[in-house]
Order: sequence, then C-alpha cells, then structure tokens
Amino acid sequence: MNAPLSTIEQLQVALPDLDWVKETPRIQRLSQDFSWFSPVLKRQLAGKFADAVVRPRTEDEVKRLVALCAKLRVPLTIRGAGTGNYGQSVPLQGGVVLDMSAFNQFLWCKGGAARAQAGMRLWDLEKQVRAGNGMELRCMPSTYRSATLGGLFGGGFGGIGSINYGPLASRGNILGIKAITIEEEPQVVELRGAEALLMHHLWGTNGLVLEIELALAPAQDWNEYLVVFNGFDAALEFGNAIASTTGIAKREVGFLSSAVTPYLKPLAEYLPANRHAFILAIAPVSELAMMELAGVHGGQVTYRKEAEEIARTHRTLLEYTWNHTTLVAFKSDRNITYLQSAFVAGEHLEQVKRMEKLLGDEVLMHAEFIRNIEGKVTCTALQIVKFTTEERLQEIMQVYRDNGVRINDPHVFIVEDGKAGGDLPQAYTDVKRRFDPLNLLNPGKTRAWQ
Amino acid sequence: MNAPLSTIEQLQVALPDLDWVKETPRIQRLSQDFSWFSPVLKRQLAGKFADAVVRPRTEDEVKRLVALCAKLRVPLTIRGAGTGNYGQSVPLQGGVVLDMSAFNQFLWCKGGAARAQAGMRLWDLEKQVRAGNGMELRCMPSTYRSATLGGLFGGGFGGIGSINYGPLASRGNILGIKAITIEEEPQVVELRGAEALLMHHLWGTNGLVLEIELALAPAQDWNEYLVVFNGFDAALEFGNAIASTTGIAKREVGFLSSAVTPYLKPLAEYLPANRHAFILAIAPVSELAMMELAGVHGGQVTYRKEAEEIARTHRTLLEYTWNHTTLVAFKSDRNITYLQSAFVAGEHLEQVKRMEKLLGDEVLMHAEFIRNIEGKVTCTALQIVKFTTEERLQEIMQVYRDNGVRINDPHVFIVEDGKAGGDLPQAYTDVKRRFDPLNLLNPGKTRAWQ
Repeated sequence: MNAPLSTIEQLQVALPDLDWVKETPRIQRLSQDFSWFSPVLKRQLAGKFADAVVRPRTEDEVKRLVALCAKLRVPLTIRGAGTGNYGQSVPLQGGVVLDMSAFNQFLWCKGGAARAQAGMRLWDLEKQVRAGNGMELRCMPSTYRSATLGGLFGGGFGGIGSINYGPLASRGNILGIKAITIEEEPQVVELRGAEALLMHHLWGTNGLVLEIELALAPAQDWNEYLVVFNGFDAALEFGNAIASTTGIAKREVGFLSSAVTPYLKPLAEYLPANRHAFILAIAPVSELAMMELAGVHGGQVTYRKEAEEIARTHRTLLEYTWNHTTLVAFKSDRNITYLQSAFVAGEHLEQVKRMEKLLGDEVLMHAEFIRNIEGKVTCTALQIVKFTTEERLQEIMQVYRDNGVRINDPHVFIVEDGKAGGDLPQAYTDVKRRFDPLNLLNPGKTRAWQ
Repeated sequence: MNAPLSTIEQLQVALPDLDWVKETPRIQRLSQDFSWFSPVLKRQLAGKFADAVVRPRTEDEVKRLVALCAKLRVPLTIRGAGTGNYGQSVPLQGGVVLDMSAFNQFLWCKGGAARAQAGMRLWDLEKQVRAGNGMELRCMPSTYRSATLGGLFGGGFGGIGSINYGPLASRGNILGIKAITIEEEPQVVELRGAEALLMHHLWGTNGLVLEIELALAPAQDWNEYLVVFNGFDAALEFGNAIASTTGIAKREVGFLSSAVTPYLKPLAEYLPANRHAFILAIAPVSELAMMELAGVHGGQVTYRKEAEEIARTHRTLLEYTWNHTTLVAFKSDRNITYLQSAFVAGEHLEQVKRMEKLLGDEVLMHAEFIRNIEGKVTCTALQIVKFTTEERLQEIMQVYRDNGVRINDPHVFIVEDGKAGGDLPQAYTDVKRRFDPLNLLNPGKTRAWQ
C-alpha cells in the first residue's frame, strides 16, 4: 500500500499539464530573492523554501492552480524575477511558489497607457512601447532588465524616472490592475485608479495580480554623464539644481559620495579618488543647461555617452544607480549592507549633509533625487553600510530616525515593519479579505493577517 | 527748391525695396499693442506713434535697415504681433517700428529643439513641430494664435505649459538666440544658453533678436475640462493637487473664481452661477486620476472635450486662460483692468485665500498654477480689477505687496518699473552697450539708458 499523497503531490497529479519545477536546487533558488542584501534577512530567511514551484503560462493555468490551492489550503507565494529585497518571494510556510515569469504577454499600448501581464519584464515592456508607440516607462528600478512588471508593482518603489513622475504610487501612474481571488472558485476582478494601489507594495500578500495597466511617458533620448566634484556640499547643490530645474529634461539624478565611488570598479577611470559624483541621464536638448550648472557648481564632466551609443552597446550607467549601486559594491566587499531612507523635502540637503557628518565613515552616502508623492524634489537614499553587527545596524537606523529622516527598513520581512511603517489601513485589510479570504498568500509576511 | 528730406524719407528713399507701411491709420495701429488693458498706460501712451513702419522679410533687409537707422540715428521699436501688454511695441520717440511678422521662417527641428525666425507665429511653430516631429512648445501664451516667437521672448512670461516647464526664463527652455547689433556696420551674433536670457523680457530694449532656438516637449494629446466647485478653498485645493501630482500629465491648470466666470459668456452654459471653476488641459491617460481628485474635493465636471474634437473644431478653452480671460472679460465690461502677481510658493494657497478675503469684491481672482523658476508649484495671478481710479489701483497693488505678494506691475511702461522690479543688473547693461551702443531701441523705455 502506497503512502498517501502530500498536498503538493495532489496538486501536481491533478494539474500535470502545468510547468512544475521539481529539482530541489531550482526550487531553492526560486524561493529566494535579493533579501541577502540584508545580513539580518539572510539569517532570518535561511532555509525558507517552497515545496514546489510552478510557472503558469495562461490565465486558465493560474485559475486552475489557485482553485486547487484554495481547496487544499496550500500557501502560495508570488514571484516575479526575485529582484526584490524584502523576502517578498520567500515562502515563510512552504507551499507553492508561483513563478510568474512565463505569464508575460504584452497586451496593448494606446493613448499614453500600456497593459501587460504581470510577469512581463520591464525592459521588454520598455522596448515594446518605445519601438511601437514612442513611449517609455515613467519609472523603473535599476533591475529593469530582469525585474517584472508585477514585481515592481508588488514590492517596488519607482526609481529611474521618479525624478519626473514620483514613485509608482503617485496618483495617475498606475491606471488599473486585474487580480484573481484565491478561492475554490476564483474571481477575476479589475481594480481601477486609486483602488488598484491597495495592492501596491504589499509584497503580494493581499492579492494575486494578473495584469497591470500603466500610464507611460513620451519617450525621449537620454544621454548619460558622470560629473565629479571636490566638495560634498557643492555636489549636492548641483544635483538639487538639476533635479529642481524644470527646463532640464532628465531621467536620473543619482549622487555617490567619494566613499561610494571606489566600489564602482568598472567606472574607475571616470571616478577620480576623493571626488563626489553624479550619475545623470539627461535629454540631449538639456545638455547645455546641465553643463552650465556643472560650471556654476565647480563640477567636471568625466563621462559622456550619447543615447545612440548606449542603445547600441547596452552599456548604461543606469545599472550603477539605485540598488544596483549596492549590488555592484557587493562584488568587491561582502561585508556591507544598506539602508533605505526618505529625507524631508525642503530639508533634504541639510539632512543629507548632517547624516554625512554624523555617520559618513560607516554609512556611505548614495542618494537619489526624486519628486515625492507631493511633487516636491527630495532625496531618497540607499546608503552603503559597513556592516559590523545587527545591533549596530539598528543603532544607525535609530540615529537617522532621531534626525527626522524616515527609514524604510529593508532588514525586516514583515510588511508592517517595512515601508508600510506600522498598522495597515482598513482599506488594505478589506482587499485582503476579498482577494485572499483563506490567508494563503505567503502567510506570516503580514502581521495583521496572522 | 524742394524741402530737405526728413530722416524717415531718407530711409525710404535709400531702401525702396523694403516693405514700408505708409498709411497713417496702419502706422498708428502698428504703433500699439495690448497696453490698453491698463487705463494708466492707455492714458500715458496715447498719441505715441511711429513715423513709419517697415516689415523686413530677410536678414539682409534687417541688416540694411538697421545700418541706415544707426547712421541716421533713427529710433527703432521692435514689434511682433502686438499682443504684449507693456507698451513694448509702442515707440516713445517716434522713428521706425520694425514689424517682424514677415520675418517668420521656420528653420529646423531636431533633437528636441527647434529654431525659427523671430516673427514666426507660435501657433505656426507649434503646428510645424507637432506634425513634423511629434513635439510641442514647452510654454506659450494664450495669445499663441497671433503672438510671435520673438514677442514671447521679448515680453512674454510663459503661460500654457508653465505648469510643467516653468516660465520661459527657466534654465534650459531657451537654447540660443541670434541677434544683430544696431550699428552702421551691424554684427550678427549668436548667444547660447543663459547668455541668451540677457535679452529676455527687456521688451526689445537691449537687442534686436533675429532667431530663437527653443527646447521643446514631446507632444501629447490634451483633453480640456471645466470643473466647478461650491467652495473657493476646496477648488484651490483641487487645483493645487492637480498641479502638484506628478503622475497627472497636464498642460494648463487655471482657476477662475465665481466672480470671474460670469465674464466668460461663451462658456456660460458650463459655468453655473456662484461656482468657482478650473480650466484644465489634461492628457487622456490622466483623466481618471483628475476625476478622482475632482471627486475628493467635491468638484463637478461640466465640460469635457477630447483632443481630436478640439483640433477639428478649433474651439479650445486655452483661449479663456491667462490674459485671454481678461480679454474676454473686456468684451462685456470696459471698466475693468487687471493685475499681475506672483505668490510665494508654499504659501500660495493661503495668500490667494487672504487676498480674496481682503479684496474679493473689487479684485476678482483669476490664478494660474505653474511651476516657478525653482521648480516649485505656485500661483501666478491675472486678477480682473473693477477699475475706479488710478489712485485706487495703486492702493490695491500696495495691499498685495503689504501681504507679501509680488506685483509685476502691468501699469508701467518703463522696464525697471515692471517685472524687472528695479535697477537692471550690470550684465543686461553690458548687453545693451554691445548690441545697441547708440541707444536707438525704443529710447525712453529703460531708465538705465536715458
């Protein structure tokens, strides 16, 4: 007499036509994401693996899988490309990881908007709308080559382009989503506008998103530059001027202190020692104005590539910005980690300078200029931290908080403890109840739903 | 024996191939602009006419004319379409009005920039770059149908589009100009970037501009809306949210208090009594987000036209914004005039509310949301004033100043007394010395150069 089938085996027997990943090493790899940036999460999430991984290719496959998982009460963890940093793709209680990367069809682009399935890679989407419609993404992470649309929506902030359009959560950037309820008879539901944002950045814990509709920006060519400065303050003032000047068309304004630039070894020839640097993506038409401002603030342009060459060679400075700065730094030093912090618009320059003075030897400044959700220029930072102990890491974050800087703690795996910053508003819980009444979406990630 | 020829006659005899306007009524008409918006200027500038008007068609014609005027010491006043409001096209000491409207060739558009001769109409330029290159003007006055590029540069501020790109003077909007010196041997000189702005908004008093090169914006479709509100404060909050929200693509955010809307008779059916209104130009992709904000603030959309219909019918709300509001109001009431004021970014809503409380019965609020030269959202206003006396008008402006609001006095005809706000910096004077060493450009308009 055979042993009874496990629930996972029942799933696999009942849905044999789905693309199941069965090799343990691949299952383990697909149970991880970039949460190893945090030594805390690396320790806490070690050994958290799915029992199985499945790669649905159609809405019907998703629906059949979800229905059966609901019936069998199997936890489901949604995964895009695994480029997130909060363990959002790490299943805390086993079950099935739903690898959405094969659910990746482009649907349409018209009227300044585009819609695609959640597993579409951002770069594929950008290429599609650029070539087909002369549009581009309003914002995207530095991981755009591999990251998926659904992953950005589920756990992303914004990034390149947020200097114009703010974070993804700014009203008007997300037009709608299609989501499916985790029930024995799954319902497919469209949420429009602000309502769609109730599933944003909850790390896939209150809904399974199938399709996302985004507002786009008219495409522009972007030249790339490195501009270096002797003075920390002069550099910041330059960046703030670039960020604030509406007449200068830009897509990226990223600041790297002289303590960070040595980590960017592939760019070493353009980053002289002891100089602070800006990585810029600027429209050709605004090059003169940028150069004028560099002159005003004592900057020196050490690197300049035109959009055409960047497109041809695929060598872009954008892959040294945002969390790619951290990733590149890890290549030469494993004993680092990072912070995520949001400065107060209007006080942001003073705050960055103050934190540099207080912690500059240990917390190496990497700040990205953006417009915040109120449309004001500010900085968000992804500082590189010379890691010693978890206790010291907590102390550092407390110093930031004590100086009025918001920490979006990237060293936690519970939704409420991260960017959400505390208890979730009722509207999010209502969505959870509607879309995941059985609490199968990565249980344990959200305190409210234990 | 014949009487000796006047200098004007000498010019006309020496340059018979130029297009001279000789009929007195036309000369008088072409010696005026929209300074009649101000009862003060109307009185002060009455009877100020050119001795002759000439319409050059080529750079060679300009050059020969300028050379001879320099030799004969004939004053020159530059005119675009005469839609300015400061008497900038009104010759104070006679001489020749240089009507630039036939010097109107489009030169090129590429790489996000366009260049044209100064007399090109803004609407012709917009149509050209939109059809040919998928671009549009970053900002333009409501008089865009008739106003010229050179007139905008010489005496304009910005306008429609300034909610994104700030005023024309924001670094990066003007890329370069070609100007000609007023000398017996005129020199043609290119000024690039910030240097070009040294001739901006000096009403043609320190240089004769031949060509202007502008940075453009990627063209978008713009739907138009009227949204009405019961509450003054609620309306303002709505407008500020539209203006500030980076995710909402817009070109125009104009506020009309319920005291102003009755003047807009052609729109009467969409403007209920006692409601405050916003005129909006919004990209179709942002319609949902705009509607959501209208809902949040208790607004009601009474008018909605899609871009396609606007293009087909040539009926646009844009011609009820900026100084067109004033122009339309004049059609039903000649006893009005207007103000121009700039509110302090961040305090702008409170200032608008305070001024409404202090003077609302006499100064009817019409405010335009823009991003200022620092990239911050604020209001600039073109209030309609129920005119009584010049003394009262001065008192009203003083009340504004006493409340911390900047008045760009549109009731003066001297450069320093208007938006320039006092003595001109040395750099402007240096340009004057270089480009008009004989002080022939409308002498009397600038105090520094008497």
